[in-house]
Amino acid sequence: MSHNSFGHLFRITTFGESHGPAIGCVVDGCPPGLELGEKDLQPFLDQRKPGQSRHTTQRKEADKIKILSGVFEGKTTGTPIGLMIKNTDQRTKDYSDIKNKFRPGHADFTYLEKYGIRDYRGGGRSSARETAMRVAAAGIARKILSNNITIRGALVRIGDQQINRHNWDWGEVGKNSFFCPDAEAVDNFDNYLSNIRKAGSSVGGEIEIHASGVPAGWGAPVYGKLDADLAAAMMSINAVKGVEIGSGMGAARMTGEENADEIRMENNTPVFLSNNAGGILGGISTGQDIVVRFAVKPTSSILTPLRTIDSNGSESEITTKGRHDPCVGIRAVPVGEAMMACILADHMLRHRAQCN
Amino acid sequence: MSHNSFGHLFRITTFGESHGPAIGCVVDGCPPGLELGEKDLQPFLDQRKPGQSRHTTQRKEADKIKILSGVFEGKTTGTPIGLMIKNTDQRTKDYSDIKNKFRPGHADFTYLEKYGIRDYRGGGRSSARETAMRVAAAGIARKILSNNITIRGALVRIGDQQINRHNWDWGEVGKNSFFCPDAEAVDNFDNYLSNIRKAGSSVGGEIEIHASGVPAGWGAPVYGKLDADLAAAMMSINAVKGVEIGSGMGAARMTGEENADEIRMENNTPVFLSNNAGGILGGISTGQDIVVRFAVKPTSSILTPLRTIDSNGSESEITTKGRHDPCVGIRAVPVGEAMMACILADHMLRHRAQCN
Amino acid sequence: MSHNSFGHLFRITTFGESHGPAIGCVVDGCPPGLELGEKDLQPFLDQRKPGQSRHTTQRKEADKIKILSGVFEGKTTGTPIGLMIKNTDQRTKDYSDIKNKFRPGHADFTYLEKYGIRDYRGGGRSSARETAMRVAAAGIARKILSNNITIRGALVRIGDQQINRHNWDWGEVGKNSFFCPDAEAVDNFDNYLSNIRKAGSSVGGEIEIHASGVPAGWGAPVYGKLDADLAAAMMSINAVKGVEIGSGMGAARMTGEENADEIRMENNTPVFLSNNAGGILGGISTGQDIVVRFAVKPTSSILTPLRTIDSNGSESEITTKGRHDPCVGIRAVPVGEAMMACILADHMLRHRAQCN
Amino acid sequence: MSHNSFGHLFRITTFGESHGPAIGCVVDGCPPGLELGEKDLQPFLDQRKPGQSRHTTQRKEADKIKILSGVFEGKTTGTPIGLMIKNTDQRTKDYSDIKNKFRPGHADFTYLEKYGIRDYRGGGRSSARETAMRVAAAGIARKILSNNITIRGALVRIGDQQINRHNWDWGEVGKNSFFCPDAEAVDNFDNYLSNIRKAGSSVGGEIEIHASGVPAGWGAPVYGKLDADLAAAMMSINAVKGVEIGSGMGAARMTGEENADEIRMENNTPVFLSNNAGGILGGISTGQDIVVRFAVKPTSSILTPLRTIDSNGSESEITTKGRHDPCVGIRAVPVGEAMMACILADHMLRHRAQCN
Repeated sequence: MSHNSFGHLFRITTFGESHGPAIGCVVDGCPPGLELGEKDLQPFLDQRKPGQSRHTTQRKEADKIKILSGVFEGKTTGTPIGLMIKNTDQRTKDYSDIKNKFRPGHADFTYLEKYGIRDYRGGGRSSARETAMRVAAAGIARKILSNNITIRGALVRIGDQQINRHNWDWGEVGKNSFFCPDAEAVDNFDNYLSNIRKAGSSVGGEIEIHASGVPAGWGAPVYGKLDADLAAAMMSINAVKGVEIGSGMGAARMTGEENADEIRMENNTPVFLSNNAGGILGGISTGQDIVVRFAVKPTSSILTPLRTIDSNGSESEITTKGRHDPCVGIRAVPVGEAMMACILADHMLRHRAQCN
Repeated sequence: MSHNSFGHLFRITTFGESHGPAIGCVVDGCPPGLELGEKDLQPFLDQRKPGQSRHTTQRKEADKIKILSGVFEGKTTGTPIGLMIKNTDQRTKDYSDIKNKFRPGHADFTYLEKYGIRDYRGGGRSSARETAMRVAAAGIARKILSNNITIRGALVRIGDQQINRHNWDWGEVGKNSFFCPDAEAVDNFDNYLSNIRKAGSSVGGEIEIHASGVPAGWGAPVYGKLDADLAAAMMSINAVKGVEIGSGMGAARMTGEENADEIRMENNTPVFLSNNAGGILGGISTGQDIVVRFAVKPTSSILTPLRTIDSNGSESEITTKGRHDPCVGIRAVPVGEAMMACILADHMLRHRAQCN
Repeated sequence: MSHNSFGHLFRITTFGESHGPAIGCVVDGCPPGLELGEKDLQPFLDQRKPGQSRHTTQRKEADKIKILSGVFEGKTTGTPIGLMIKNTDQRTKDYSDIKNKFRPGHADFTYLEKYGIRDYRGGGRSSARETAMRVAAAGIARKILSNNITIRGALVRIGDQQINRHNWDWGEVGKNSFFCPDAEAVDNFDNYLSNIRKAGSSVGGEIEIHASGVPAGWGAPVYGKLDADLAAAMMSINAVKGVEIGSGMGAARMTGEENADEIRMENNTPVFLSNNAGGILGGISTGQDIVVRFAVKPTSSILTPLRTIDSNGSESEITTKGRHDPCVGIRAVPVGEAMMACILADHMLRHRAQCN
Repeated sequence: MSHNSFGHLFRITTFGESHGPAIGCVVDGCPPGLELGEKDLQPFLDQRKPGQSRHTTQRKEADKIKILSGVFEGKTTGTPIGLMIKNTDQRTKDYSDIKNKFRPGHADFTYLEKYGIRDYRGGGRSSARETAMRVAAAGIARKILSNNITIRGALVRIGDQQINRHNWDWGEVGKNSFFCPDAEAVDNFDNYLSNIRKAGSSVGGEIEIHASGVPAGWGAPVYGKLDADLAAAMMSINAVKGVEIGSGMGAARMTGEENADEIRMENNTPVFLSNNAGGILGGISTGQDIVVRFAVKPTSSILTPLRTIDSNGSESEITTKGRHDPCVGIRAVPVGEAMMACILADHMLRHRAQCN
C-alpha cells in the first residue's frame, strides 16, 4: 500500500510540492525495449502546463522533464524510470493571508486537521502541480499501449455553457485553448470565461475522455474492474467531484430497452449499435470506445470575500488573489487523458499476465 | 494485488458464483477484541436479500451467514475472519437460451472474450449475488467504526420518478420497500415500478449514501483519497455507471461563489454553511457528512426481444425470462451502505497508523 | 496489504484456526482454462496430513479438500477459487493446562501480547494446521507451472543425523516416512527419532527444495527478487528459523574463486559448471535448478517440564502432553514444496506481464 | 505491487542505476511532525559509502543526500519524502570487456535473459549502489522508531575468520573499518583480507543485526510475520545467500529442551532465559532483542580468469579489473541495519493500525 502510488503492474509513485525544489515520480513495471526519451514526454507536459492562454494561471513553469533512470541507449531497460521536474517559478510571495486562514473549498483545513502541519505555499502537496507527473508518466503508458490505442479528451462544458454534440470534431480540440471539440462553442466559451475571470470568479467544467482501439477483455472483476479503476483515477484528480462511464448518472433515468446496447455482426466482427456501456460491461472492456466523463468544481480561489475561520478558531474573511485558473477544468483535459492512459497500460499488463 | 480484494488495512477478499455451492469472503485486518457474532451480520444481509417484495427478484435465498474463523468466545481475535453463505436456491433451470447467446448489457460477452470460458448459470461470478459478501463484511466494518458513525442510504430516483428533497426523512427509509426517504414519493415509485414490471421492462435508479460522525482527517492524498476510494468502491458494484461526491457532476455548472462551503464557528467547533464538498476536501474528510450518490443502470434482463449474436458469431434475438429485479437499484442501497462502511473502516485504520 | 495473503498475481489468502469449524483459502489470479478438480489437490494434502506414521502427530484429519468456486465443468474460469477443509478431529480436550500458561517456544505469549486475546485451542491460528491451505493452493500453482517444472523436496537432516549427499536419490523420497533421499540414512533417522519420541523430546530438521525446469528470467529486482520472495515464503512456515539459497550461509566462508559458477556451452545452451547461486543471480532465475534450504526448530511441545509464567505474571512450570510431532520438520517438506510452487507461479505471471 | 518498493505503511520505492545521473527514492507513509533534515540521513550514508578504507572499493562518491519534498520548516508533513543522490564518480571507462561477456556470479546473464537489454555500466540497476537509498530511507525509519529502539550491526565472519563471541563489545564496532565487535579479531580480519585483496581474490562475510527495545507484539501472522519480512528484506540485499533468525540454521540440530527459551519474572516483567527465538515467536516480537544474521557471498569480480560465455554464445574467459570490494560483506553492515530499521518502522505502524 502506498498513499502516493497507483496502478499495479504499471505503477506510478509521485512526490513533490508546489514550492519545493522539485516534483518527481517513479514509474515501475514498464516493459523493456521500448524506445523512450524526454522528447516523448515533453509535448504532453506542454499541453498541461500553465500560462498558455489568458484562461489559465499565469504562473510560468518550464515543466522540463528529466529522465533519471530506467532508460539505456534510448530504450527502456525494465528497471524503474525516475522522472523529475524542477520547480522554477516559486515566486517569493507574501503568504501571510493564507498561512493561518482556511480558504473555503481548499484542502487547507483538512490537511491541517489530518497532519497537524501544512505547507501553505501554493497549496503544497494538494496543488494541481502534482498532476504534471501523471502527465509525464502517461507518456510512458502511451508507449506501452502503442499506436493501436488512441486516447483523446475534450472539454464539453464550462459552467452553463456546453457543446453541441452534433458538432463534435476531434480535429477542433487542438485548435482552441479550451480543448473544445465544437468549433461553434469556442466563442461562447471564450466570452463566458472572460467575464468570469474579470469578475474575479471561477467556474466548473466537464471533461470527456475517449479511448479507441482497446480490445475486448481488459479489466478484472470484481474489485479490479476497469470502470472502478477509472473512477478512482479520475476522482483522484484535484477538484473532481463526479465520474461517469458511458450513460453515467443518466442511466438512472433509462429503461432496459433504452439502455441496451444491441449487437450485430459486421465484417465478421461484433458491432454494438450504441454505447451506453461506455465500452465496459462487468468491469471488462467490450472493444468499443471507453468513454469517461468527469466534473471539475470551480477553482476555490476567487476574489469574492468568503466567510471562514483561522487556525486559532477565530472567524474571519478571505479573498484569494494571485495566479489562479478561472476554470481548472481546462487543464484537467490532458490530466484526464493521462489517467486513462496509465490505467489502460496497467490493465493491459494485468490481462496479459492472467490470460496471455 | 488481487482482483477480488479491496481495502488495505481492513481488507476483504470475496469468492463465489451464483450457482456454485457457496459464496464467501475473508476479512483481514480486523482489530481484536470486538464483540462479533453472526447475529451482528444477518440483519444487513436480510435487508439486501432477494424476494422481499414484488419489486425484487423472487429467487429465495436464506442468505444465512456463517463465521468460520477469527472469532473466539464472541470476540474478534485479530486473525482473518472467514465468512460463508451456502447457495440454496440453485433452481434447476434450462440455460439453453443464454448458454450461447450474449444478453445485451450483461457481462456474458466480456467474460467470454476475456477468459475464453464462462459460467453462464445465473451470471456466474458477475451475478449481483457477490454483493452479499460485501454486506456481510460491512457488518464487521460497522463494529470497527462503532456507534459514533452512522451510515445510511436511500433510493432517490427510479427512472423518471424522483424524491422531493424537502420531504427527506431518514425515518421513512425503513418503512417502505424502496428505501425511499420521501413518504410522498412512495406511491409514485410503487405505481411506476409496477408498470415497468408488468411491461417486462426495467428501469435505473439513483442511490445516495450518507456517513455522519466521521471525524476530520480521514483519507490519504493523493491516490488514496477518500473520495477516490469511494468512487472505486461504488463503481465496483454491479451495474453502477456514475458516482458523485457532494455536488457531483453538478459542480461543472457552478461558480466559485456557489460552490464554496463557507466556515463559521459554533460552540467552538468549525461549522460549514453548506456541503457541496460532500464532506471531503483534498481527499480528506472535513467532519461534515460524507455524501455519495451513484446511478445504477436498468437490469439488462428484460422481456422485450433484443438483437444480439451468439458465441459462434451468428446474429440472433434474445428475450430474458426469469426471476429478475425490475430495478436493481433498490437492493443496491444496502450494498452502497456496505461499501461506505468498509472504505471508512479501512481509512480509520490507515489514519490511525500514520497520524495516531 | 493483507497479513494473511501472499503472492501478487497468483495470490493466496488463508483463514482458519486449528479448532474452528473449517480452514480455507481464496486463490486469486489463476489463469482460465486449466483443468482442475479436487483430485488434483488431494494427493498433496495426503502427503502433509498428520497421522501417517508414528513419527508425526496422531491427530486424525481427513483433510478433505472442497472447491467452492472458480471452476466450471472441470476448468478454471479465471475467477477466484475458494477452497475449504472442514476440521473433523477437534477432540474435546482439557485445555486448562495451557489456557493461561505460556508454552516456551510457542506463540502463546506473543499472540496474547499483540491481540490481548488468544484462541488457545490447539494453537488457534498459529497452528501448523494453517499450512494445509498452502499445500492445497500449491496444487493449483503446479497446474499453472505445468509439467515442465518439477518441484521436489527432501529432509536432509534431523538433529545430529544428516544424509550423505552422495547417496541422494529422488526416487527414495517417496519410499520412507521421512521424505529422505538417502536410503542408507533412513534407519538412522528412524532409530534416532524413535528415541527422541520415547524421551518425550523433539528435534529440529533441515529441508531442501529443488525446482527444475524453471527458465532463465523469472524474478524481479530489486525488492521482488525471486530469492527474497522465497526467503519470506519459507520463513513464514511455522517454526522455520533459517533460509538458504544455493551455497547459503556457507557463502560467507568461500572465496570468489570457489563461489563462481563458471559457464560453458553445451548443445548451444549455456551450462553452469556448479550451482552455488542456487539458480538465482541478481534475484532472477538462471535456468539452473532453484535450490532452497530451510531449518525447522524442534517442536516446542515436549514432556520435559519447562519454566514459564502464566498470563497473570506468576512463575510456573509446564509440560505439554498430547498429539505432537517429535520432528515437525518432516511434514514441512510438502509445505516447503508448496511454497516454492506458489512463488514460482506468481513470478511466472509477473514475468509474462512485464516481459511477455 | 511494485518490483522496486518494499514496506506497506512505511513504504520505500527506489530507482536509479550505477552510472545514470542520479539515484533516488520515495518514502511514503511517514508520520507527520517528525524533525527531519539532511543532517539526520547523511551520517548513515557516510558509513556505507565506498572508499573509506583500503578494504572497500576506491570509487569516490560524495553520496550527498538531498530531500526534495515532504519536509516543511524542518518537520515531516505526512506527504511523500523524495530523496536523491547525484552520481558524481561515473568514471569514463572502457566497458568493452564486460559489455558482451557475462561475469560468473554477476547478474549480467540474468538481466539480459529477462529483459533482452542491459545497462552494463557498473552493474546498472544490479549495482550495490542501489543500497544507498535503503540507508537514506532508514534514517527516516529511525526517526519513527525513536530513541527507544537501538539498531546495531556487526561483521562476525569473513571467510574462515570469525569473531570470538565472548569478546563481543558493541563499543568496538565503530573503532575499526570492519564493523567488528571483537577487538581481538580485528588484526586477523585485517591481515586475512589484505592477503585476499593482494591475491586479486574476494571473500564472503557474515553480518549480525540486533534491534533492542522493540516491544512485544509487532509482526502480523501468517504472511506478514516479522521474521518473514526480515528474511525478504535481508535477502533482497545484493549478494546475500542466507538469512537466520535467532538460532537460525542451527535450530535443525537442536532438541526441544535446548531450543526452549524459558520464562521467568523479573521486576514484574517477563524475562526469557535465552534467545534462540531471536526475539520472534509466531512471527511476532517477544520483547527480546531481534537477532538476524545473513551471509554475503564473495564479490564476483576477481582477477582470476574464469570460464564464461559471451552474449553470442561463444565460450570465453573473463578477468574483472577495477574498483571492487574484496569483501562486500563489510559495507553490508549498515545496509542490514537499514533494512532492519525500515521493516520495524513498517511493523510499528501496522501494529498501531490494527491493535492501537
